[in-house]
Amino acid sequence: MASESNAPPLLDLTIDNITPNTNRINSQCKDQRLVYLMTRLVTHLHDFARETRLSSEEWMAALNFLVGCGQISNDVRHEFILLSDVLGLSLLVDSINHPKPPKSTEGSVLGPFHTHDAPTMPSGGDMSSDPEGVPLLCICTVKDINGKPIKDVKIDIWETDSSGHYDVQHEGRDEKGPSERCVMLSDEEGTFWFKGIKPVSYPIPHDGPVGKLLEKLGRHCWRPAHLHFMFEKEGWDHLITALYMRGDKYETSDAVFGVKQSLIVDTTMADKATAEKYGVKEGTTLLKHDFVLVTKQETDDLKDKNAMEALEKLGLRMKLVDHLPIPELD
Amino acid sequence: MASESNAPPLLDLTIDNITPNTNRINSQCKDQRLVYLMTRLVTHLHDFARETRLSSEEWMAALNFLVGCGQISNDVRHEFILLSDVLGLSLLVDSINHPKPPKSTEGSVLGPFHTHDAPTMPSGGDMSSDPEGVPLLCICTVKDINGKPIKDVKIDIWETDSSGHYDVQHEGRDEKGPSERCVMLSDEEGTFWFKGIKPVSYPIPHDGPVGKLLEKLGRHCWRPAHLHFMFEKEGWDHLITALYMRGDKYETSDAVFGVKQSLIVDTTMADKATAEKYGVKEGTTLLKHDFVLVTKQETDDLKDKNAMEALEKLGLRMKLVDHLPIPELD
Repeated sequence: MASESNAPPLLDLTIDNITPNTNRINSQCKDQRLVYLMTRLVTHLHDFARETRLSSEEWMAALNFLVGCGQISNDVRHEFILLSDVLGLSLLVDSINHPKPPKSTEGSVLGPFHTHDAPTMPSGGDMSSDPEGVPLLCICTVKDINGKPIKDVKIDIWETDSSGHYDVQHEGRDEKGPSERCVMLSDEEGTFWFKGIKPVSYPIPHDGPVGKLLEKLGRHCWRPAHLHFMFEKEGWDHLITALYMRGDKYETSDAVFGVKQSLIVDTTMADKATAEKYGVKEGTTLLKHDFVLVTKQETDDLKDKNAMEALEKLGLRMKLVDHLPIPELD
Repeated sequence: MASESNAPPLLDLTIDNITPNTNRINSQCKDQRLVYLMTRLVTHLHDFARETRLSSEEWMAALNFLVGCGQISNDVRHEFILLSDVLGLSLLVDSINHPKPPKSTEGSVLGPFHTHDAPTMPSGGDMSSDPEGVPLLCICTVKDINGKPIKDVKIDIWETDSSGHYDVQHEGRDEKGPSERCVMLSDEEGTFWFKGIKPVSYPIPHDGPVGKLLEKLGRHCWRPAHLHFMFEKEGWDHLITALYMRGDKYETSDAVFGVKQSLIVDTTMADKATAEKYGVKEGTTLLKHDFVLVTKQETDDLKDKNAMEALEKLGLRMKLVDHLPIPELD
């Protein structure tokens, strides 16, 4: 502010000068990416307060909401991922970081229930210990955009049990160990197959602050039935996705915005030959799917191109360092 | 609450359409103020991710940072208030909600250390039990803008001990009870006076996520020496402020942006007459200050005027309901 030009730094801060001053003090940092992130964060945060004339009570309620999210979180529950999911941020961040060229498998939200302790199984393994679940035979391939199989891809697969809960949502999970989750490797033909149970729709955890927020907003907390998949192999873009069962009641109202038409799948029933070959009962629900991965290089190129185009459209003069924008200084 | 069938279908969400769709689904809520807050929040959050091309790793680091802030918080520590403080948000929210007409006492940040269990003391009480502190005699008045004394104002006063820690930062506070804090009432002349200790500069709690963030940003975590005051009386605008000791090393670089020139004070030494009158040793450090409160009505009027002007400047067509803006619908 002109009237403060003779004042020493950081004195008499007001609605109008707090933002540039906060950004100035944060710009002492040598990490230019962090400076850019903080500058945009502070600017948006302050603009939010100015546009809404945020009241002291609303401010305090928001801070207490955030404490609540942190305090209900633990090793197997991440309320802030859930918050990011229901605000559409998770879908957005995934879309920015994993752009998909035509014909490749689209991504979906990770959700808060992936764990790192799933047992590795050979193809044919049964990932579920739930006797109430409807048996599912799932036969998949993973290939490149030209239809060439990709071998030795590490595939994480996880789903809920028939009650709509992930294993980590049950008491005693430490003793019982993981269930309804496994890790597989694709073979020379890019194939992997497993036995699981037919996914069911389920409510996201709604006993915490995020559930209360959805209730206040008049939103339901359900996700349509799906199976999670995560694909990893050096040189290939990390793919986090899910397959959604066609016809689910929540197909077009997923609480976390994850559904894409290309990820909605149909199931059939295993015929006699298939049943014999894969060691299941005839008539078992059968899901077949072909996943298509993109190389890391192709993804990086597409991501860089999208970034530069978007930033230019926003009128921002930026350069990319390690594929992340920082301001271009004169 | 709108039924599901009224909600727009949510399918194939992308970088470009996730924001309007999230806002549309949140707009089912009947509370128009909450809808407005959520709309601005989601828009800023998404714009932040789009402008920074936020990476999945940065997103995860941010969510884990927030979990850390929640988990280190407890009854006597609120890491999110601290975060709001160091990001300049607290100062901004206070400025929006408590605009000050000329001649009134300016506000400052509340900080995370106010408690509700301070003992009520008559004027003359000694709020400190710290034998290491430099004794301070503080004689104050509270008046209106025309110089008329205001009686029966409830005044909360709190400061650190001589080591720069609030009582709640020490072990065993539950047993020992509050120290360096008290509540007083102004008398017929608007006067209140107390014995305390001379404030010292101190670092804000920096053993948690917020401290680590400041370190990463190359910012120090110090606050200049100050005494906190909070004034409450029906019909008068709630005043949260502080008095800062002139000449402090951190006077112009307060980690939480709280210092205003009008709140920087000088101390003198109690002369013989004063010492005798107030029951302290001659030469005791003496701080005299006159606080000026504004009526609730005057503050509300000023707040409404500022809000409408600011929103108009932003090109937003809004109306105020309970002094808070919501969009003016056609």
